[in-house]
Amino acid sequence: MPETVLAVLTAPDAGREAPEPFRFVDPDTAVLQVRDLGATRGDGVFETMGVGSGRAQAVDAHLARLARSAAMLELPEPDEAAWRAATIAVAERLAHHAEGFVKLVYTRGVEGTGRPTGWVLGSPSPDHTAARTAGIDVVVLDRGLPHDSAGELPWLLQGAKTLSYAVNMAAIREAKRRGADDALFVSSDGFLLEGPTSSLLLQRGDRLLTPSTSLGILAGTTQAEAFRFGRAQGLTTSYEVLTPDALADADALWLLSSVRNAAPIKAIDGVARSIDAEFTSRLNAHLLARRD
Amino acid sequence: MPETVLAVLTAPDAGREAPEPFRFVDPDTAVLQVRDLGATRGDGVFETMGVGSGRAQAVDAHLARLARSAAMLELPEPDEAAWRAATIAVAERLAHHAEGFVKLVYTRGVEGTGRPTGWVLGSPSPDHTAARTAGIDVVVLDRGLPHDSAGELPWLLQGAKTLSYAVNMAAIREAKRRGADDALFVSSDGFLLEGPTSSLLLQRGDRLLTPSTSLGILAGTTQAEAFRFGRAQGLTTSYEVLTPDALADADALWLLSSVRNAAPIKAIDGVARSIDAEFTSRLNAHLLARRD
Repeated sequence: MPETVLAVLTAPDAGREAPEPFRFVDPDTAVLQVRDLGATRGDGVFETMGVGSGRAQAVDAHLARLARSAAMLELPEPDEAAWRAATIAVAERLAHHAEGFVKLVYTRGVEGTGRPTGWVLGSPSPDHTAARTAGIDVVVLDRGLPHDSAGELPWLLQGAKTLSYAVNMAAIREAKRRGADDALFVSSDGFLLEGPTSSLLLQRGDRLLTPSTSLGILAGTTQAEAFRFGRAQGLTTSYEVLTPDALADADALWLLSSVRNAAPIKAIDGVARSIDAEFTSRLNAHLLARRD
Repeated sequence: MPETVLAVLTAPDAGREAPEPFRFVDPDTAVLQVRDLGATRGDGVFETMGVGSGRAQAVDAHLARLARSAAMLELPEPDEAAWRAATIAVAERLAHHAEGFVKLVYTRGVEGTGRPTGWVLGSPSPDHTAARTAGIDVVVLDRGLPHDSAGELPWLLQGAKTLSYAVNMAAIREAKRRGADDALFVSSDGFLLEGPTSSLLLQRGDRLLTPSTSLGILAGTTQAEAFRFGRAQGLTTSYEVLTPDALADADALWLLSSVRNAAPIKAIDGVARSIDAEFTSRLNAHLLARRD
C-alpha cells in the first residue's frame, strides 16, 4: 500500500486531447524540469483537499476555486474533467487511511512551451488530534497590504491561491519563533483577514462570522462547510468586514483548513481564549465525515 | 554546442561533503520532484547573472546577495564555493555566445528531507538591442506595501529575491495589457521602488540616483555597477528616498538588470521621456564588457 501517490496530468489545460487524462508516477522520481515556471517563479496555483477513507472532500468547490485562481493568473483554463479524474483516482488509493489529503498543483509549465504542468499528489494526513482538541496558539501579523488591494491592485493576486507562498511560510515561521502554532493576518489598515493556510471563523452568541472575501482573501471551502453545518444547528452565518475588536468580542474562534479542519484558537498573542470543545468536536466530526 | 546548460549542485548548502560540487545534466530532463518546496511554495531564492563570452559577471555580488536572500528565508547557508564552481563551469560552456546568462536557484528542497535543492541554468541571451537603444515604455504600479515594510514586517520578505514571483510576473502582464513593456513599482505611501525584475536609475544634471534599499527593495548588482561607471565619468551618485516627482524632474531614466542591462525609459504611463542615447550606449558597453 503506497504511502504517497502521484498522478501527473497529461493535458491539464482544457481543449487539448490526450489519450489518457493522467498517469501514475513514482512520487520519489523527478518529474519537473528546472525551467518549469512553477519552480522558478512560483507561477501557478494549487488546491488541497481532505480525503476521507479514499474519498476527496468538497471536490466541486476546490475545482471551482482552482479555475478561479488560474483565471486570476491568466493561466489556461484547467481541464476540469481531467483534474477531477486524477483527484478521484489518487484519493481512491488512500482508501485504507481514515484521513488523507490530495494536493493539486497547476503551473504555467516549462518556459517557452506554452504548455502548463499539472499534478495531483496524495498522502495520508499527519495526526491533527492535538490541534483539533487542545487548540492552537495564534499570533496576529500585519499582511502589509490594505484591505481593498484585491479590487484596486489586481496584479497583487490577492484572493488567488498561488504557488508564491514564501511569505505565508515565513509568517508561520515567525509565529513559531514567537512560541505560537500559527498566524492570523490583518490588513495594513486594520481588518481581519485569514491565516497563511487557513480561514478565520468566529462565534458570537448564535452567530458564526468570517471575514468577507471582498478583503482579498481566499473563499474558504472548509469555512463554507462550517457555515452550512452552523446553519443546520440553528446558527446564523455572515461574511463581515471585521477589525481585531471582533476577536475580543468572540465567544470562540477557529482557524479552518481542508486537512487540519477546525482548530480552536486557545490563545491570541499570548492571551488565553476559551474554546468550545463540544461544538468543535461536532464540527470536526461533520467535516471528517464528508464524502463528496 | 549546447544552447542551454544545466548543472545540478550535489550539496548546495554549506557544511556537507560531496565528492563533486555539481554535475551537468540534460536541461530537458526532469530533475525536480513534485514535493520540492521550490515548486509547491515558491520557497527558495535565486540570482541571475549576465555572461559575456563565457565569463559570468559580478559573481561576488550575486553570490553575496544569494546568501543574504537565503538568510532572510532562513534557508541553510549556501556553499559559496560550490555555487561559484557551478556558475563558472556553466558560464564557460556559453563561451561561443557574446551574451548569455546563468540563473542560480536555491530551494528549501523536497519537503521533509531538510536538504535544499540547487541548480545553475545557463543560456544564450535573447537580443535586447531594441530595449537598450530605442528604450522601453513603463507603467507605474502600486506594490501595495508601505515603504517601511521591510524593517517592520520581515515576514513579508521584502528585499529578498525569492522564487515567489507570481506578483512580479502579473505586474509585467499588466504593463503589457496597458501597451507598455515593463512596470515600475511604487509603495502604497508613494515612494519609488523598483521594477518587477529591475532597478530604477535616474540622472539629474551631474547626479545619478536610485531608490534606497531601506525601502525593502533589492540591492541591484547592475545598479551598483552603473554607479561605479557614473563616478568614473565624474558624476555623483546617491541612494535616496524618492517620490514620483523625481521621475518628472529627471533628465533621463533607466531600468537596470543583469541580462538586459540598461534599458532607457522612453515613456512613463504613456508620457514620452527623452533618452540619453550616448550615455546609455557607453553604459551598456561598460556593462557588457565586464569579465569578473
